[in-house]
Amino acid sequence: MPHIDGNRVIADLRRLAEFGHYKTGVHRPTYSTPDIESRHWLAEKFREAGLDPMIDGIGNVFGRHQGEGPRLLVGSHSETQPYGGWLDGALGVVYALEVARAFAADPDCAGLGVDAVAWADEEGHYGNMLGSRSFTGRIDAAELAACRNREGESLTEALARAGFAGRPREQIEPGRYVGYLEAHIEQGDTLDTSGRRIGVVEGIVGIWNYRVVFTGQQNHAGTTQMTRRKDAGVAMVRLATQIHDRFAAIAGPRTVWTIGRMVLEPNAPSVVPGRAEMQVQFRDLDDGLLGTFEAALQELAAEAGRGGPCRIEIMPMSRTEPQAMDRAFQDAIEQAAERHVPGGHLRLPSGAGHDAQVLSHRMRAGMMFIPSLNGVSHHWSEDTKEADIVLGAQVFADAAAAILRREAAA
Amino acid sequence: MPHIDGNRVIADLRRLAEFGHYKTGVHRPTYSTPDIESRHWLAEKFREAGLDPMIDGIGNVFGRHQGEGPRLLVGSHSETQPYGGWLDGALGVVYALEVARAFAADPDCAGLGVDAVAWADEEGHYGNMLGSRSFTGRIDAAELAACRNREGESLTEALARAGFAGRPREQIEPGRYVGYLEAHIEQGDTLDTSGRRIGVVEGIVGIWNYRVVFTGQQNHAGTTQMTRRKDAGVAMVRLATQIHDRFAAIAGPRTVWTIGRMVLEPNAPSVVPGRAEMQVQFRDLDDGLLGTFEAALQELAAEAGRGGPCRIEIMPMSRTEPQAMDRAFQDAIEQAAERHVPGGHLRLPSGAGHDAQVLSHRMRAGMMFIPSLNGVSHHWSEDTKEADIVLGAQVFADAAAAILRREAAA
Repeated sequence: MPHIDGNRVIADLRRLAEFGHYKTGVHRPTYSTPDIESRHWLAEKFREAGLDPMIDGIGNVFGRHQGEGPRLLVGSHSETQPYGGWLDGALGVVYALEVARAFAADPDCAGLGVDAVAWADEEGHYGNMLGSRSFTGRIDAAELAACRNREGESLTEALARAGFAGRPREQIEPGRYVGYLEAHIEQGDTLDTSGRRIGVVEGIVGIWNYRVVFTGQQNHAGTTQMTRRKDAGVAMVRLATQIHDRFAAIAGPRTVWTIGRMVLEPNAPSVVPGRAEMQVQFRDLDDGLLGTFEAALQELAAEAGRGGPCRIEIMPMSRTEPQAMDRAFQDAIEQAAERHVPGGHLRLPSGAGHDAQVLSHRMRAGMMFIPSLNGVSHHWSEDTKEADIVLGAQVFADAAAAILRREAAA
Repeated sequence: MPHIDGNRVIADLRRLAEFGHYKTGVHRPTYSTPDIESRHWLAEKFREAGLDPMIDGIGNVFGRHQGEGPRLLVGSHSETQPYGGWLDGALGVVYALEVARAFAADPDCAGLGVDAVAWADEEGHYGNMLGSRSFTGRIDAAELAACRNREGESLTEALARAGFAGRPREQIEPGRYVGYLEAHIEQGDTLDTSGRRIGVVEGIVGIWNYRVVFTGQQNHAGTTQMTRRKDAGVAMVRLATQIHDRFAAIAGPRTVWTIGRMVLEPNAPSVVPGRAEMQVQFRDLDDGLLGTFEAALQELAAEAGRGGPCRIEIMPMSRTEPQAMDRAFQDAIEQAAERHVPGGHLRLPSGAGHDAQVLSHRMRAGMMFIPSLNGVSHHWSEDTKEADIVLGAQVFADAAAAILRREAAA
């Protein structure tokens, strides 16, 4: 089995966190100056690890194994959320680097092929998981052309500014990979509160999103009698309350739902709102249950709309299907975890989206979690104990080796 | 009785609407260039009407009657809401001008004294009814010093820019006035839908405002299980729904309440809101009922807060007390209306605030409404039939004459 160097893992994570350093976290949006610099630094680290480095036309950084035989693709994304955490996807990228180094240093593992990757824009600054979708052929030119960040910069402009324009966007080389393995912090507190140190991801939840728009009539809040009002805000809070009640009644044990965004127009204290909008989202591993939620949402909205006085429209937005992780990959992670921390692991779904769900459409895929202290994520205060980071790197390397060995033996 | 010149009234209203003309309405915020120009124009019109014109240190435009005897103060405000209507307060200012001219032209009325006024900033661009509060001594230097508009310009800067700085702010001359009479468009649709042409204002509602703040915990919408959430948005929509239900149950026939402003933080679809805020407002003529509403609001919030998981705080904001209009002034308006349009008038409260409520603290006050087409107000499309504008001017002049004659006879 390979031996990872814990101090080196921590040192590289700390070094990577200097690109866009913010308080104890990192502000490194995709294609920002620190992100571009960090991708060049990663390419250099891949080279030092004996891999063939390359940054492609969408900013994905690859470090390719130069030997023969079955290969495992390992990695995660390297940009961060605004003022986000220092680990998040960077953890999985540095684990990938360390696996390559540990394999190269161990005569027993030298033949095992890993390609390391740092995906671009999993965090969605310009689009939806751009790097992994580009690599798997799951994004078309029209969508790429329409991508913009919050400041209105187009993806095309950003790639030109970054110096990545004109390079080919790498695509999966058929037959090259046994599969894809990704490590990430949990982002929730299931591991932290249960005292487990390794999470074996069973699957990545499907995320269904809707915009609900309420159209009433804007009016003066002093001179418009209650019986004549068509208050879009009243319609919105009533439906939102019903949604929370109904969803709680039909939810599975791990279903989550959120109304995270609400807007009144014109949003002034003395004006009856003429228009309102909210976004409803729910997540589960079971797509039957997701369908039940959708039906309930449609039914509640239709019922509320029939009662008037406002028009209610539901507009489906982005939707991802639940993606199960490969069973054998789950077993490999679990067995590696059991060896290093007997009983200290847990199977659980991922409530957040990850590049692994994109890759899973094209190859076998697995994911491993390490704990997030207090479940904090997407915030600069996100953190994980160093001992857990080091343990995770070893379990991850062992699992990768086991997957490749099993493949070679098959 | 005086005879107003309908064509002159319409012509002056159209001319005044050219200052800041926008579509069929007017954009003339207080102390904007068109507002300053219109105030000079009004002062000149007051002079032409035989009044002694003056703009004071806060931008109020006065046209003072130069004869002896009891005087009635008549007018309204002349600035507009952003992209507002062409009538609104301007109507009452031009009515005041026309009353002065009609009285001067009629030997029977020449002895009746009216002072015309165009108040500054009733619409609250820099503060709360600045002009009439300055005139009645109901604002202090500290509040004036703190006034700013939305762009951050201070009142002090605006007055200097307007050329009004350094002038005295006029104060009520003790004993000068019989009272104050104001005309305005209704802003609601009570007159328009009932086919009545003159509204006799019984009083101006009290307006009580509250900020309600919900403090929960911001979290990832995918990885935070429902049972662990402290979702400030859920707390807000639940309480808002309860407020609407409870208020409907305890409301009087003319009570209105509005939750016109709601804000979630961070207001992102995939983040559990950690903080939320809404503004609750209610209006009624009966301050006992306003107190009942406040108690209900406090009780519902306390109850919701006890249940958790979010902290709920209620912060009282601005509050105006209901102001009854003078009974004899109401009768004078009603009798004048009955003479010109028998049965075509209506007593009603004003759901919006007006300078008359400020004046009513210092003298007898009355208000008259004319219809707003479809109740539209504070929007450039606000309008009233010309025949109703002309009728209103005549009824207003008759009422003013009757009030002054009764005073002289007393």
